[in-house]
Amino acid sequence: MKILIENLEFETILGILESERLTPQKISIVCTIEYAYAENEFINYAEVANLIEKTMVKEQFFLIEEALKFLSNSLKNTFPLICELTLNIRKPNILSNCTVGVEQHTSFSEQFIHDSRL
Amino acid sequence: MKILIENLEFETILGILESERLTPQKISIVCTIEYAYAENEFINYAEVANLIEKTMVKEQFFLIEEALKFLSNSLKNTFPLICELTLNIRKPNILSNCTVGVEQHTSFSEQFIHDSRL
Amino acid sequence: MKILIENLEFETILGILESERLTPQKISIVCTIEYAYAENEFINYAEVANLIEKTMVKEQFFLIEEALKFLSNSLKNTFPLICELTLNIRKPNILSNCTVGVEQHTSFSEQFIHDSRL
Amino acid sequence: MKILIENLEFETILGILESERLTPQKISIVCTIEYAYAENEFINYAEVANLIEKTMVKEQFFLIEEALKFLSNSLKNTFPLICELTLNIRKPNILSNCTVGVEQHTSFSEQFIHDSRL
Repeated sequence: MKILIENLEFETILGILESERLTPQKISIVCTIEYAYAENEFINYAEVANLIEKTMVKEQFFLIEEALKFLSNSLKNTFPLICELTLNIRKPNILSNCTVGVEQHTSFSEQFIHDSRL
Repeated sequence: MKILIENLEFETILGILESERLTPQKISIVCTIEYAYAENEFINYAEVANLIEKTMVKEQFFLIEEALKFLSNSLKNTFPLICELTLNIRKPNILSNCTVGVEQHTSFSEQFIHDSRL
Repeated sequence: MKILIENLEFETILGILESERLTPQKISIVCTIEYAYAENEFINYAEVANLIEKTMVKEQFFLIEEALKFLSNSLKNTFPLICELTLNIRKPNILSNCTVGVEQHTSFSEQFIHDSRL
Repeated sequence: MKILIENLEFETILGILESERLTPQKISIVCTIEYAYAENEFINYAEVANLIEKTMVKEQFFLIEEALKFLSNSLKNTFPLICELTLNIRKPNILSNCTVGVEQHTSFSEQFIHDSRL
């Protein structure tokens, strides 16, 4: 099963520019979680969305890349059922004539396979 | 050939929250069906859309995950030509600042290959 | 290089219902063409769009599946540089609460490989 | 990490028609960059967007295909961290009933692998 959290929008401090450190900006997040569903084991999408928003607002990251790495670890630690995770953070308003964003895909099952070869 | 049924929208009871059991909410479904088309054998998209809506409204599922498993079996049983199926059920209005959904991909040909190895 | 023709919209007779044979309906087409670009050999997107629209309006297909097979052959015959082709025909207005469509992907290079094994 | 620059819109001379050589038209670009992020090595999305716009406006390409090849080389030369690059240039207004575009995907790591076999 793949959980989709799309267009999660809120305001937060994010960025390396002086103006970005002073003024919260709108960000838009897409989170895709592949996990092995079983009857009594499911991931609650509301808790996922809540964790992402709270973490971003609290940590006030400089680079989107840092935010992605931090969030990816937090989500896996909180929801161990996660097998694969795609996180995408967009800044719709930072540049005047485009939307910019960064995306990270993490496959925890692959990671496991690599580790188990050691 | 791949049939696409996109943004199939209707209201139904779906969810585990008390408010979701009492009040129907808008849901939005995408269904993608890969099948082997032959001249006298085609799948009628109207029948597919109709089956999905009727099933969801009748069954009033708790988890989207359950709904996906049930629908996937119903569609394959009703339209045996289906080779691959992707079903996606979104709740656009349950959280205030995002859209949530769950998606399931089923490859019946792969399943067949696995079974035939036994 | 991949040519993209998106949201090609026009009205035509298409479908098996009596009402669809009598009244033209709006259809929306996406066409993706992978081809090997060379300096003096390129595919003109305007000619592709024109061929698709003229063929659909002239042939008045019953099934979208038939239309896709016919168009796929016409495009390959007219533009031999095509390696891969994805065609998608949608009917936005035929069902009241969704968009329906059918998509076909054809890989001519794969076809060549299969043929050359004979 | 994958950087996304979406819907980068500006006006420029682009095309082979006489009218396109005389009058700037709106174009819309999507650029996806896969790169190996490290703590002190990141690609600045603002510099990427700026390079694309400046190059297009200065070079006034005839074919979108030429523009894609030129931009692909410029970006890799300016940002050597790039591993994979997808560039997509659309002309939303050149045809009356559709959007046309051309897309190029370049995998620099694959290229490297091929070269290293020599």
